[in-house]
Amino acid sequence: MRMRHKPWAKDYLQSRPDIVDLDRTHAKRLDEWFEKDQPIYIEIGSGMGQFITTLAAQHPEINFISFEREKDVMVKVLDKVIDQQLNNIKLICDDAEVLSDYFLPHQVDRIYLNFSDPWPKRRHTKRRLTYHTFLERYQTILKEEGEIHFKTDNRGLFAYSLESMSQFGMYFTKINLNLHDEDDEDNIETEYERKFSEKGSRIYRMEAKFHQ
Amino acid sequence: MRMRHKPWAKDYLQSRPDIVDLDRTHAKRLDEWFEKDQPIYIEIGSGMGQFITTLAAQHPEINFISFEREKDVMVKVLDKVIDQQLNNIKLICDDAEVLSDYFLPHQVDRIYLNFSDPWPKRRHTKRRLTYHTFLERYQTILKEEGEIHFKTDNRGLFAYSLESMSQFGMYFTKINLNLHDEDDEDNIETEYERKFSEKGSRIYRMEAKFHQ
Repeated sequence: MRMRHKPWAKDYLQSRPDIVDLDRTHAKRLDEWFEKDQPIYIEIGSGMGQFITTLAAQHPEINFISFEREKDVMVKVLDKVIDQQLNNIKLICDDAEVLSDYFLPHQVDRIYLNFSDPWPKRRHTKRRLTYHTFLERYQTILKEEGEIHFKTDNRGLFAYSLESMSQFGMYFTKINLNLHDEDDEDNIETEYERKFSEKGSRIYRMEAKFHQ
Repeated sequence: MRMRHKPWAKDYLQSRPDIVDLDRTHAKRLDEWFEKDQPIYIEIGSGMGQFITTLAAQHPEINFISFEREKDVMVKVLDKVIDQQLNNIKLICDDAEVLSDYFLPHQVDRIYLNFSDPWPKRRHTKRRLTYHTFLERYQTILKEEGEIHFKTDNRGLFAYSLESMSQFGMYFTKINLNLHDEDDEDNIETEYERKFSEKGSRIYRMEAKFHQ
């Protein structure tokens, strides 16, 4: 998600090292950062943070990590974490390409991908977060029974992801081809999702695991 | 597909043993039935036969089999085969549950499933043509690189099939989540498809293979 440039963003994020990692301080040492030793769920690309902060408030028994490249966006997530006094969520500001530098092998229970950039042009396929190089990183850090939960309004990205993930050796445990037309009381909307589903766009969702 | 009962259907089908097999005459001996030794494509549940007869006319280099349980429907397929003087298509009147009785292992190049009965009730899951017991039969008769081509307007059946097939160990090479809104000049419509897409229903399509 692109936002107006905020020159003060870096200083603000650096003022809360208890919540934000800007320089790999906690890479491979996340255990020491969280208050409690409990399952880890990551969201890659958190946008303004509505989804992950809502989930973190609902699930104090889980440790959450918001993995987001853009400082100008991450300040919105930090605002929400501070406002709600959430102590089970940390923010890592880095590129998804170095995701696996932060985690021990098979340390993560779940990865959320919500409304990722669809990169619709064929020459940008490698940048899609379900391209096989990313799937390899997810497989490295996820537990054997770990799950990827994926949500998008982009039909092309959803179809591509079903192809790419199944070709890589993943399978789907739950697929919704029109999320808001089906019963799913557990769905937590992102800001983006609310905006687009109100316009009548279809939302696609899946849960996936790796074949062992 | 259900149609008005035609008491004359059996006699009519029996009058053309060169085209129709009603009593397993050609089980495991299909080679002797077809004029030419060439790749085999099957359609399971051919409805009125628009799809498979169009395909057979376009592809004389392929042997086609229409596998259909209902005699009252099959007469419509036979009509088309006779009218168009197609010599590369045979009709087998039997239940899909005994599909593998007709073929040698890994004899088949492609299976088409077009607008199969969705069996939407959970207790009927086992009857869906993408339930794992059917996938086992397809795997037995398909060549290693053989493909399943699946098309439906039923969102629930499509989502179920993506789950079931990926869980079984299949992968998808091509997925369309709104076929008639995307470019696919090769698409041959079934009678059912034309009717429903004209009403504005979405058509879903996929091509799938078995992981080796």
